[in-house]
Amino acid sequence: QTSKTKAKPPPVVHYPLNNVTTSADPEANLETILILTPLARFYQGYWDNLLKLSYPHHLISVGFITPKTREGNFATQQLQDVVHKTQTGPEANRFASVTILRQDFSVPVAQDEASRHKLENQKSRRAAMSRARNSLLFTTLGPSTAWVLWLDADIVETPPSLIQDLASYNKPIIVPNCFQRFINEQGKEDLRPYDFNNWQDSVEAAALAKKMGPEDILLEGYAELPTYRTLMGGIAELEPERDQSTIIPLDGVGGTALMVKAEVHRDGAMFPPFPFYHLIETEGFAKMAKRLGWQSWGLPNYFVS
Amino acid sequence: QTSKTKAKPPPVVHYPLNNVTTSADPEANLETILILTPLARFYQGYWDNLLKLSYPHHLISVGFITPKTREGNFATQQLQDVVHKTQTGPEANRFASVTILRQDFSVPVAQDEASRHKLENQKSRRAAMSRARNSLLFTTLGPSTAWVLWLDADIVETPPSLIQDLASYNKPIIVPNCFQRFINEQGKEDLRPYDFNNWQDSVEAAALAKKMGPEDILLEGYAELPTYRTLMGGIAELEPERDQSTIIPLDGVGGTALMVKAEVHRDGAMFPPFPFYHLIETEGFAKMAKRLGWQSWGLPNYFVS
Ligand SMILES: Nc1nc2c(ncn2[C@@H]2O[C@H](COP(=O)(O)OP(=O)(O)O)[C@@H](O)[C@H]2O)c(=O)[nH]1
Ligand SMILES: Nc1nc2c(ncn2[C@@H]2O[C@H](COP(=O)(O)OP(=O)(O)O)[C@@H](O)[C@H]2O)c(=O)[nH]1
Ligand SMILES: [Mn+2]
Ligand SMILES: [Mn+2]
Repeated sequence: QTSKTKAKPPPVVHYPLNNVTTSADPEANLETILILTPLARFYQGYWDNLLKLSYPHHLISVGFITPKTREGNFATQQLQDVVHKTQTGPEANRFASVTILRQDFSVPVAQDEASRHKLENQKSRRAAMSRARNSLLFTTLGPSTAWVLWLDADIVETPPSLIQDLASYNKPIIVPNCFQRFINEQGKEDLRPYDFNNWQDSVEAAALAKKMGPEDILLEGYAELPTYRTLMGGIAELEPERDQSTIIPLDGVGGTALMVKAEVHRDGAMFPPFPFYHLIETEGFAKMAKRLGWQSWGLPNYFVS
Repeated sequence: QTSKTKAKPPPVVHYPLNNVTTSADPEANLETILILTPLARFYQGYWDNLLKLSYPHHLISVGFITPKTREGNFATQQLQDVVHKTQTGPEANRFASVTILRQDFSVPVAQDEASRHKLENQKSRRAAMSRARNSLLFTTLGPSTAWVLWLDADIVETPPSLIQDLASYNKPIIVPNCFQRFINEQGKEDLRPYDFNNWQDSVEAAALAKKMGPEDILLEGYAELPTYRTLMGGIAELEPERDQSTIIPLDGVGGTALMVKAEVHRDGAMFPPFPFYHLIETEGFAKMAKRLGWQSWGLPNYFVS
């Protein structure tokens, strides 16, 4: 090497995977978390809630994937604005990194709530969602990632201690109970269960699956497919003094708020865009993780919305 | 922000996924390639061959995953030595980055060639290999990765133009024909087919699969499982004047030299550690990619060893 060589040697990095711990007390062990959000629409409430998370922000990396549509372009712009403000603002708020990916395949159906929930649209929509989630996951997961928290873009309200709370159970996969605030018939603020993909399997659902062809998928919440599964949204206790630490095993999970140990993903657990045991996306993920030896869990009395 | 604040804002990176092209002329389009190698044993010939690749090294990132065994520790040390030499040596040789991961789960069986090829050991061994490949893939795949080239640690001989040659077909998944040099009974240097996982499916194999239980896997090259598949190793033409560009569709692929467009992996295609349509690891990967809409291809007359 002559003295004229200005180029520094490119980075050589050595990451012993076993130094990445996951534990019930991630903060004490400096465990890094990757928060991943597929984002089609930007809500300020989502960002405000994110900022209020009490887990040290320097241990949090955030990743987004947005569709390449006019709506997605606009949402990306709004996202970039708040990201810039936060990352150049008070140091305690700044995240370790923020990555925004644009997905490189198109969205099959309209995004309004009625259209996207039509049964015939669900298969293609959730397959597209699966590909988006996998792109985001495979691309952002890094050597030092200990936990991955999937968070939908319309989650605007969680306890500030969400990360510590979910990690405290030290489970490979765990979800809180996701509700939606609305104005009821009496004109009053009310809460209703929202994520119907957090469930325990049933004999009836297994029977339905047995009769299905390889391309058929079982979806939750459609009269045409009476699964009789136990939905976590239906077993919540609502009193303020409820035991928030009640924990139950789950066979299916949704993506509204989904905490996963990085090792589960590293084993290969992803979101199948194709029917996997007649399940797809996040529910297929829970099944895949089960095949890999990882059990999913839920907290019916711990809420996000 | 006061002038006393020394901390720079953490990185915010925006990667439009559609700017990552994959084409038949990757060099012209500055496409980055990620070469991934699960490595249990270090061979100098592997590294020498890697250095001789004519694709611009500044467009190549290399990733390794090594088992946490005494053998793996030693191989890691040898690897670190050559990596250091190369990355601090002549600039044209240096790779964009080199990452070495240690796998955080144990290896089920002995590594000698006889043991690891025993049928009963294959399932657990290939499941462990799958987890290692997935860990390496999920952890190193980045936003600017266009291609992924899986290369076994005992591949010591490829054309220097391997990357450009494989990419030139512009296929989502493509493999060359992998052979092994050996000394034959006449005491002369000879070549024999080595990777039996590059195959086209057969009626017989489909019939075998139909009779299998959900935990059974179909492995190639075992008398107990007569698949009658067309093995790419068996249809190579050996004359020097053979047409090296002969290309055939494949249903199963091996990992000795396996070129994959990053978008295939980003869709979710990984190496199933569990029986997936009675296939596992790289063969399961080909099936999974097929489910995702991506066809695998092989070059029976283009050799690596
Ligand atoms: N990247 C991406 N994100 C999407 C797309 N469609 C929806 N999302 C996001 O995925 C999550 C779930 O979508 P949402 O519309 O809330 O589905 P719902 O809760 O089932 O009604 C939200 O965070 C959305 O912003 C899409 O096509 N691409
Ligand atoms: N990380 C890791 N790599 C392995 C392990 N076992 C084998 N390898 C590597 O995986 C590749 C395939 O293994 P090899 O022993 O050559 O298998 P064979 O070609 O089927 O006999 C080679 O690159 C090995 O160095 C393991 O337990 N962990
Ligand atoms: Mn939603
Ligand atoms: Mn080998």
